[in-house]
Amino acid sequence: MAVKKPSIHDIAREAGVGVGTVSRVLNERPNVAEATRAKVEGVMERLGYRPTFAARHIRTGRSQLFGFLTDQVTTTPFAHDLIKGAQARARQADRMLMVIDADGDDRVREQAVSNLIERGVEGIVYAAMFHHEVHVPQALHEVPTVLVDCFTLERDFASVVPDEVRGGREATERLLEEGHRRIGMVTNDLLATKYPAAVGRLEGYRAALDAAGVAYDAELVREGLGNADSGYRFAHDLLDLDDPPTAFFFGTDRMAMGAYFAFAERGLRVPDDVSVVGFDDQHYIADALRPALTTMALPHSAMGRWAVDHLLTAPWGDDRLPLQRRLPCPIVERGSVGPVPASDAGEEP
Amino acid sequence: MAVKKPSIHDIAREAGVGVGTVSRVLNERPNVAEATRAKVEGVMERLGYRPTFAARHIRTGRSQLFGFLTDQVTTTPFAHDLIKGAQARARQADRMLMVIDADGDDRVREQAVSNLIERGVEGIVYAAMFHHEVHVPQALHEVPTVLVDCFTLERDFASVVPDEVRGGREATERLLEEGHRRIGMVTNDLLATKYPAAVGRLEGYRAALDAAGVAYDAELVREGLGNADSGYRFAHDLLDLDDPPTAFFFGTDRMAMGAYFAFAERGLRVPDDVSVVGFDDQHYIADALRPALTTMALPHSAMGRWAVDHLLTAPWGDDRLPLQRRLPCPIVERGSVGPVPASDAGEEP
Repeated sequence: MAVKKPSIHDIAREAGVGVGTVSRVLNERPNVAEATRAKVEGVMERLGYRPTFAARHIRTGRSQLFGFLTDQVTTTPFAHDLIKGAQARARQADRMLMVIDADGDDRVREQAVSNLIERGVEGIVYAAMFHHEVHVPQALHEVPTVLVDCFTLERDFASVVPDEVRGGREATERLLEEGHRRIGMVTNDLLATKYPAAVGRLEGYRAALDAAGVAYDAELVREGLGNADSGYRFAHDLLDLDDPPTAFFFGTDRMAMGAYFAFAERGLRVPDDVSVVGFDDQHYIADALRPALTTMALPHSAMGRWAVDHLLTAPWGDDRLPLQRRLPCPIVERGSVGPVPASDAGEEP
Repeated sequence: MAVKKPSIHDIAREAGVGVGTVSRVLNERPNVAEATRAKVEGVMERLGYRPTFAARHIRTGRSQLFGFLTDQVTTTPFAHDLIKGAQARARQADRMLMVIDADGDDRVREQAVSNLIERGVEGIVYAAMFHHEVHVPQALHEVPTVLVDCFTLERDFASVVPDEVRGGREATERLLEEGHRRIGMVTNDLLATKYPAAVGRLEGYRAALDAAGVAYDAELVREGLGNADSGYRFAHDLLDLDDPPTAFFFGTDRMAMGAYFAFAERGLRVPDDVSVVGFDDQHYIADALRPALTTMALPHSAMGRWAVDHLLTAPWGDDRLPLQRRLPCPIVERGSVGPVPASDAGEEP
């Protein structure tokens, strides 16, 4: 199948000229006779010659490459959306992405960054798979870098992250809009205060209640682990309260999925008996639940796009202030939110 | 933050030697005095000089790059596992992957392949996100190429795919082992005969029944669309039969998930009242269901690894026979398979 690719030497021999002449044609230099240029180009076309990019890179000093480094092994499907967003923006600017999954190993990460720099990448996107603080290879300071869904303690790189607080607020507002006042919340792991996904979404929940004049009730808030089991367990717990919630806000779609099974066991219908909003917009979960889950979308594709755009357009230098850009998490309406059930509404004083 | 990178000219000036001398040091040529070499290397280290890869590429003729091209936009999380497997093997061989999501657009695909070839990739992995026939850019014939989870009508490229038939057979055998004889199956979309995932898994189901001496009953087989709704609907349908199945084999985990909701509505417990095996091993679904779902794992990481390994090790030439390698889909035992319920077992003649 594979055919031997013609080299610049083959072209020169076939055209009866020197290699230097072929090179001048390739580099579009003026000092080549028109007839010679035509002959060389004819041979190139006939032999199917493609100039190598490495030569162009050396000539122009531009690799037209960006590095895309992920910080750890992940079973979430988010990596792909991030890559896709970054790549779409890179393609518009005629750049390619070199993607490395650094596998959570510091040494591999250091090597990956070195290798990318040796290849002359014009910038690096360093992406985490959930919003948290990271330690990055120091060599990233040698090349324009944007962090995605993460940040360093020193805030010494530009970064783009989801606006967790606003997402939590809007999720809660959606339930308040329907008249719910007893809104249970199951957060992600709060112990890890490094995780803005947990702390921020809870902060947003409280802000929405405050703004609506609903007193915060600590009894309605449980700290889960993000998985289906947490959702299942704490849905049962909250429904066992004397004055149980009529609506639930879960910090992840997986917890909402677990809760659906708790509701089914109790014969509660979503959204007639209980309303639910999730977070993350994991399609195959949110679409597959019955009814499909209303949830807040993490802006993975938008973050990937923003990161590459920033590399392409931001001025770069020692005096540049690293910024953190927060992108909104838009609500995706499906079918899990409804008004307060008549029985509960009727009981209100 | 970014510092100006020193060039070979900076090194030469700082070391008080010519650029040619620096180049000879870089290329580890013998004709440099030891003292000069030490001085040049000292300056390189002090200035933090990194040789560019483009120069090495031109010198050695080896890009140490593989291209990784996906054939379409996908919302499945499989892309990441494929990339991870391919990358792990590439890294062992000191190669890097250049990943392109070709977005289902023929022109973008052609351009991507051209661009990869211009960059001198040593081979290309062309990956689909589900097992089907593909049309690929003709330029792929110019470079060693392996197709993953797909194949061309002409079978003119090596490819690696899941062993769908064996997966279907082993899923069914697992249920037969527990004494089930009425085993419902909901397939993926069979109309699309191009999709071996549908046809192959059904073939495996029939082969397992044959081998166990269980007559095939067309009434027990329904054609779904792979989504949760199909699983929900056909689980209800099959349970409405006069002699309903005691076990179900679903062609996707998403269909199994839909079926769980049907079982819950009927008060049937998994696996006490009904056993279930899925297909795909989508973790966040299979792990999150209650009980967790026993399913057949698609070998995405193994396929990615096999593809790069084949590029690295297979002899390449016109006389090479393209092969199709089928990798097994191992069963992942969770909690959804149990023995035939006593009531049903007792009814057997």
